[in-house]
Amino acid sequence: MKKYIGIEDVNDLQELVSEALQLKKENSALSLGKGKTLGMLFFNPSLRTRLSTEKAAKLLGMDVMVMNADKDGWALEFEDGAIMNSNKAEHIKEAAGVLSQYCDIIAVRAFPGLENREKDEADQVFLGFTKYATVPVVNLESATGHPLQALTDAMTITEMSTKKRPKVVLTWAPHPRALPQSVPNSLVEYMQKMDVDLVITNPEGYDLSKDVRKDTPVYHDQEKALKDADFVYVKNWSSYEHYGKILSENPAWTVDNKKLGLTNDAKVMHCLPVRRNVVIADEVLDGENSVVIQQAGNRTFAAQAVLKRILENNK
Amino acid sequence: MKKYIGIEDVNDLQELVSEALQLKKENSALSLGKGKTLGMLFFNPSLRTRLSTEKAAKLLGMDVMVMNADKDGWALEFEDGAIMNSNKAEHIKEAAGVLSQYCDIIAVRAFPGLENREKDEADQVFLGFTKYATVPVVNLESATGHPLQALTDAMTITEMSTKKRPKVVLTWAPHPRALPQSVPNSLVEYMQKMDVDLVITNPEGYDLSKDVRKDTPVYHDQEKALKDADFVYVKNWSSYEHYGKILSENPAWTVDNKKLGLTNDAKVMHCLPVRRNVVIADEVLDGENSVVIQQAGNRTFAAQAVLKRILENNK
Amino acid sequence: MKKYIGIEDVNDLQELVSEALQLKKENSALSLGKGKTLGMLFFNPSLRTRLSTEKAAKLLGMDVMVMNADKDGWALEFEDGAIMNSNKAEHIKEAAGVLSQYCDIIAVRAFPGLENREKDEADQVFLGFTKYATVPVVNLESATGHPLQALTDAMTITEMSTKKRPKVVLTWAPHPRALPQSVPNSLVEYMQKMDVDLVITNPEGYDLSKDVRKDTPVYHDQEKALKDADFVYVKNWSSYEHYGKILSENPAWTVDNKKLGLTNDAKVMHCLPVRRNVVIADEVLDGENSVVIQQAGNRTFAAQAVLKRILENNK
Repeated sequence: MKKYIGIEDVNDLQELVSEALQLKKENSALSLGKGKTLGMLFFNPSLRTRLSTEKAAKLLGMDVMVMNADKDGWALEFEDGAIMNSNKAEHIKEAAGVLSQYCDIIAVRAFPGLENREKDEADQVFLGFTKYATVPVVNLESATGHPLQALTDAMTITEMSTKKRPKVVLTWAPHPRALPQSVPNSLVEYMQKMDVDLVITNPEGYDLSKDVRKDTPVYHDQEKALKDADFVYVKNWSSYEHYGKILSENPAWTVDNKKLGLTNDAKVMHCLPVRRNVVIADEVLDGENSVVIQQAGNRTFAAQAVLKRILENNK
Repeated sequence: MKKYIGIEDVNDLQELVSEALQLKKENSALSLGKGKTLGMLFFNPSLRTRLSTEKAAKLLGMDVMVMNADKDGWALEFEDGAIMNSNKAEHIKEAAGVLSQYCDIIAVRAFPGLENREKDEADQVFLGFTKYATVPVVNLESATGHPLQALTDAMTITEMSTKKRPKVVLTWAPHPRALPQSVPNSLVEYMQKMDVDLVITNPEGYDLSKDVRKDTPVYHDQEKALKDADFVYVKNWSSYEHYGKILSENPAWTVDNKKLGLTNDAKVMHCLPVRRNVVIADEVLDGENSVVIQQAGNRTFAAQAVLKRILENNK
Repeated sequence: MKKYIGIEDVNDLQELVSEALQLKKENSALSLGKGKTLGMLFFNPSLRTRLSTEKAAKLLGMDVMVMNADKDGWALEFEDGAIMNSNKAEHIKEAAGVLSQYCDIIAVRAFPGLENREKDEADQVFLGFTKYATVPVVNLESATGHPLQALTDAMTITEMSTKKRPKVVLTWAPHPRALPQSVPNSLVEYMQKMDVDLVITNPEGYDLSKDVRKDTPVYHDQEKALKDADFVYVKNWSSYEHYGKILSENPAWTVDNKKLGLTNDAKVMHCLPVRRNVVIADEVLDGENSVVIQQAGNRTFAAQAVLKRILENNK
């Protein structure tokens, strides 16, 4: 693996999932990364991604340097040819070039603004690093995807499934803030490569990008979609069509025990953080079907598998 | 030791103090914590606690991950059953559960609000982590106690005392901000377990909680209390009775050389940070009786003793 | 080396530069710093200095603890005899004394205010640490100097020069913000110790302090100065004479290919971050003469050489 921008960097998803599950089983310190440095750059808040990736790197023997890019360093300019006489002190060309001098792998988190679809799809901040860095870059959630989360999800479903081809339902749920499509985008892309029966359900106006959905069936009737589900992946996202807008906060879409009753005793997944009693009811999160904590635990080993592959490729 | 919430987790204080002093004497790197991770979460500023605990963990061979919880991560909800549709993105149940996946020990600092006594005594933030984490939790100063500081203080007094039963005077001093009772609370609790003659002195209205004081004598006349003291522990706190209020900034309570003259050539202690010439005069802090720097240096070994005990218990 | 405040701590600059270049060639992990801790304190933003110094310390086997002093810890008081009843919670005396308990070397970054020349020249924050710390202190850019950058620059010029005595031109360039004189000050001091032909060029009113310039020629005509240059070091600074003021943003001083044409095919240097198309034109930064990225890469080994010397002196 030369980098980890998204699904296109994964040759064989099942193999990568197997490796991550094997790393989880072993849970031991390796020396592959000794003397190598992971630089982590955060333009946005992070709990799971920050700590699981740092832990994964250390399990591989790497040193880790963490920066809150927006607070510890300099405001970055991303436009080519900009006359930098306003508030941006450093251009992405220099920042990425310099970081490549100090780090063997650079990992970046940069959320979308959710105001301008074209701008967000250009993924200027994250892709700026992939363009100008001279070392491998890892996606810690960009404007359009969250592939470390999706690898974790593939791993969790593989680990917990009791049948050959489980039904996985990705359901939209209400939320008071406009959220990115990154997590559902990557989930859909990864599930399309898995031997699962994937269904998406969301209110009208919330269909994900056609480029992402492809032929995956979309139901606007949540109850119909949930029928016989083996895994229910709950997640809010803002509208793609009416870009970045909140069209509904309809509490009828909150996942509670009644909804769970429609499924095949489904495992309930969420990438976290989750708004309790808005996205998912307490009774579900505190019940036996919720696997959100174990899912978050898998983040470490998904990240470890990715970093391990990149280190192996750059030995 | 299964966790370190407060004095109730210490079976034998003298033995723990001896171990900390022994670790200080050896001052060498151990391998007990190799492959183990300490996660440190700060909801409030920290200099000594942050650096001494990080250093202690590294002396034990642990990896350390530090987060400014309020800036790097997500705003946390602590209420059971909350409908999370406002500004809190993550519930303590998930945050603590997830951190327990990445860390072998979790250490948390969370100050009181000093506006609502009942709420502060419930110690919602810190105790939320002890309730929902599945790994041992260490108190880096909670709303009501600072037991790593108190263990350091017990260690410092043991180390520097030249007599069997020294007189220790905890004296209130003025301060321009409302401060927690955490440090004096824990000091009193730890001193009550030591072979010392403990006396508290503070202006009227500043008596600590009866549950903490128990039978420890309280003088409202500072000069009388200081007589023949071997150790003077200076500290401001806000009123417990008129909860969180500043009732006095009376400079007559500032500890200067004249006050020191009333003592038995007492060592002067303070947990730091200290407001010079408000809490303690320059002439005292810069004089030979002040041991505040050595006291702060002991923080490393008090933390090391606690982390070592917890690691040993969880091998 | 007992500390690294500035050029006065360097006995033999050529020897130190050679050692740094040798460390770069070897680029391997050493064990000299095992069990030692570097504490890094930032009062201002930092990308290169932060990451290269952290990396250098880890290459030496040291542990590193990083603090954003102004955000993670307590606001510091620097005045002797202050009555600390306002917003400063901790005095530099305690802060430096306490840090010396936890760290074997303390590194500090503290920019000038650029409002009061005398105050900035007293370099209160940085020199406060050198005064009150009991362990060696390293300058990560103070109010008046940036000696780790200057050592890097000496190293880069030594590494890239193809002649015995290259002509080095330090040229002022426009910038929308008032910047410190730290970088040009240290560059001039270090170049004065090198076998180079040093020339400074800046608009009238921008002459550096006479104490720094000494007999180094200063041209107010940039084109004349650039003639036959082998290295052009571009940097903005605010006026020293009209202290901290911006007297000109004249774009005629921007370094572009036309200016470069006046030189002896000069290498172009800058400490970064650089404002593109204000300080230096895109065509220069993206061209073959720019060495700014390699220069930034040398920061690691300059820092490593300094930390190594200090560790050796304190074994």
